[in-house]
Amino acid sequence: MSSNTMRNIGEKSCLILLVLLLTSQSIWASRKSLKPNEPCKRFVLFYHDILYQGGDDVDNSTSASATNNTKLGNFQLGRLVVFDDPITQDRNLHSPEVARAQGFYFYDKKSEYNAWIAYTLVFNSTEYKGTLNVMGADLMYAKTRDVSIVGGTGDFFMARGVATLETDALEGFKYFRLKMDVKLYECY
Amino acid sequence: MSSNTMRNIGEKSCLILLVLLLTSQSIWASRKSLKPNEPCKRFVLFYHDILYQGGDDVDNSTSASATNNTKLGNFQLGRLVVFDDPITQDRNLHSPEVARAQGFYFYDKKSEYNAWIAYTLVFNSTEYKGTLNVMGADLMYAKTRDVSIVGGTGDFFMARGVATLETDALEGFKYFRLKMDVKLYECY
Amino acid sequence: MSSNTMRNIGEKSCLILLVLLLTSQSIWASRKSLKPNEPCKRFVLFYHDILYQGGDDVDNSTSASATNNTKLGNFQLGRLVVFDDPITQDRNLHSPEVARAQGFYFYDKKSEYNAWIAYTLVFNSTEYKGTLNVMGADLMYAKTRDVSIVGGTGDFFMARGVATLETDALEGFKYFRLKMDVKLYECY
Repeated sequence: MSSNTMRNIGEKSCLILLVLLLTSQSIWASRKSLKPNEPCKRFVLFYHDILYQGGDDVDNSTSASATNNTKLGNFQLGRLVVFDDPITQDRNLHSPEVARAQGFYFYDKKSEYNAWIAYTLVFNSTEYKGTLNVMGADLMYAKTRDVSIVGGTGDFFMARGVATLETDALEGFKYFRLKMDVKLYECY
Repeated sequence: MSSNTMRNIGEKSCLILLVLLLTSQSIWASRKSLKPNEPCKRFVLFYHDILYQGGDDVDNSTSASATNNTKLGNFQLGRLVVFDDPITQDRNLHSPEVARAQGFYFYDKKSEYNAWIAYTLVFNSTEYKGTLNVMGADLMYAKTRDVSIVGGTGDFFMARGVATLETDALEGFKYFRLKMDVKLYECY
Repeated sequence: MSSNTMRNIGEKSCLILLVLLLTSQSIWASRKSLKPNEPCKRFVLFYHDILYQGGDDVDNSTSASATNNTKLGNFQLGRLVVFDDPITQDRNLHSPEVARAQGFYFYDKKSEYNAWIAYTLVFNSTEYKGTLNVMGADLMYAKTRDVSIVGGTGDFFMARGVATLETDALEGFKYFRLKMDVKLYECY
């Protein structure tokens, strides 16, 4: 084989690689490589909700019903609860707060308990300052359910992700605790 | 031309291509090529809302007013409706459900009917499992209006997009149907 | 050095560059270069809220309470206000409207004034048509607080960003004005 032929093969393979690269890059550009099992940040939090039920219970309570249930079904449909709930890193309500969850949920199903929730995690710990904004269906019948983390500020500037919720404790209407598995897939 | 000169030209053009590639890639990285007419996924859904109006109408109803209208204007400003509405692939209310829309809307304008809406599409069909989270102004006076799809889970992991809403039927306060043109621009 | 050796070096360096390029690209793909001080679009808006307090005040009012406060604390916890508020480019309430803010806020803290807010900026000016969707904790005690811009439509197709809110005027419960520093980091 002549030196020219060899060189041509060398240059052609270089060009082919470039074309392949360009093609793969344009695919990457439109389909970033986000994968459910590869979050860029992940941590577990516990959310404690203590519903005010009138009377002297102001000190302990962290949420209150802004509306009453309607008469559509027997599962509190229409009751909207506003909350400012403590967030801890373990199950203990009295552990140090790493954040507050401020937002609301309401019951929305006539045939079983089911809710819709939107809230802001307001972090104020040595580790994080800033917020994460969350919304989604809280499918209470499911062992775990995913809600969307749709934005963030401060240390969570422009973050997005998914939070997996799990009911971790339930004491009638007075108290419930959610385990919140926070997975961020966009970190800046 | 000598063999060395040829080779140099070959290598230089290779380098130039690399530089061009790097430049174009960095533009792509900061400005992804999202275009309104190029969704990565698109489908049309129909949303059926049957408002509970008290009495025996529990079986058919899919939504209920959690608050009453205020006295600011004559267009129901302040009425907040909570819903768990069936979603079908055609106009027929009795077609198979492909999803539920769980969320709320409220009227917010004193001079005409206008609403704000947020909901989760909870898919449970052979085709899709997962959710899409939606929010935006439902500008009822406009033939079509766009709301934001701000996140997704399951088969719609981390999706974002736009849903174009159109009032497709309206029967007083009892029933309305929205055509929902779902366009996703971020698919993973 | 023989011509073949030179060529091999040329081709190898070309391949090494390609590998470096691929590696750097995949890093770019997963970590876009969004930085708080480098928005792709930025503008300041003023939000005017005039709360309806009953009686004849319909003409001026732009918002109304859909629920009353609960008895949990003395800071209006549970009061939910629905609004369709004018947005101007300067502090003057009577300046031309560039947008409407349609949405709601509610008070959520028992120990001080604090709110949670979600709204759509509906632009209808010579400069912009379209919407921006916003949600977050309105930490009223903080001089400035950041909320998330989670989606956009029309001229703001698929936008995301952060809005920095600052209370700019406060006249009891009747009127307040927010300065809104809108910073978009995803522009298409």
